[in-house]
Amino acid sequence: MDFYCFLYDRFETLDLFGPVEVFGRTKDRNIRFLSQNGGVIVSDHGVRVETEKAGSIPEDGVLVLPGGFGARTLIDDAAFLDTLRKLACEAQYVLSVCTGSALLAKCGVLDGKKATSNKLSFAWVKQSSSSVEWAGRARWVKDGKFYTASGISAGLDMALGFVADLWGEEEARGIANWLEYVWNSSSDNDPFAVD
Amino acid sequence: MDFYCFLYDRFETLDLFGPVEVFGRTKDRNIRFLSQNGGVIVSDHGVRVETEKAGSIPEDGVLVLPGGFGARTLIDDAAFLDTLRKLACEAQYVLSVCTGSALLAKCGVLDGKKATSNKLSFAWVKQSSSSVEWAGRARWVKDGKFYTASGISAGLDMALGFVADLWGEEEARGIANWLEYVWNSSSDNDPFAVD
Repeated sequence: MDFYCFLYDRFETLDLFGPVEVFGRTKDRNIRFLSQNGGVIVSDHGVRVETEKAGSIPEDGVLVLPGGFGARTLIDDAAFLDTLRKLACEAQYVLSVCTGSALLAKCGVLDGKKATSNKLSFAWVKQSSSSVEWAGRARWVKDGKFYTASGISAGLDMALGFVADLWGEEEARGIANWLEYVWNSSSDNDPFAVD
Repeated sequence: MDFYCFLYDRFETLDLFGPVEVFGRTKDRNIRFLSQNGGVIVSDHGVRVETEKAGSIPEDGVLVLPGGFGARTLIDDAAFLDTLRKLACEAQYVLSVCTGSALLAKCGVLDGKKATSNKLSFAWVKQSSSSVEWAGRARWVKDGKFYTASGISAGLDMALGFVADLWGEEEARGIANWLEYVWNSSSDNDPFAVD
């Protein structure tokens, strides 16, 4: 099971690299970095990351989607949303952080599902789709194959929760200790809730 | 005041991008990514980052140094340590995360100073220099112009502490809220202490 991170310009730096740090500590799994056209993608803080052009994700692959200011433009980019929808449908699991869930919602894959997002951008996110049950109080939400995290640092907690779900709590605790990170392990414990 | 991140192959992903996320939220400051020879640097988790060849850091610049498995080799690399020493002497402030402090210690700039590092690697780190007062219980340590953080995620707490020291607690709290991050704002509060 490998991880496929789908990047775009002005993604939020920690949205991506929090989960990458966690998944990078799991055993014998690769992390790949994709984008719509390949080449260098620049985060909102100027990190220039080399990516591969997005092709297909294998049926046991995990799609990881950050949020960020770039999402504000891509929410109206039909070609980007087509690619995202295809990758999300192919993947065994789909994980978004922050406003990444607005992009997933806009391309329809969260219809009828429960999801969360960045609480400071929650009003904007909810406009992306009225077919999603948006949770205003959740550090992260799992619904079927979709995991959606709250804002930015919540990606770390969700990634550890994903590890716990798939490979056990002990594995997740071990990674959190490795990171010297005090894991908020309860998806319902949201210090930044808006409801 | 701009931030100059000094990268090397197999740096620890979150060591760097936690602080980058925090400093990226401060106003009107740039973040630059340097390496010994320039070109693409690959993190321990396969993130391929474009960098500039390290030149000089202006007298109001901040040097940011991650740790990681790459440090285990570089601790014996005289050319790398020469460059690091030069950059550390030039910068107004020097911030390290995790085992980055072992590299600073090895090149002598922490002599007579108090510092901390990753607690899981603490025995190895202490071997880098006996002229440093190593703190086994500290989330981060400030001594003069040097800030050293404990392991990996501690870089987030230290970076917010640096912002608080320079631009006020309110600015740091605002950034932590933006990140939906529960900031451990006490440098003495170390849940992973080894003493």
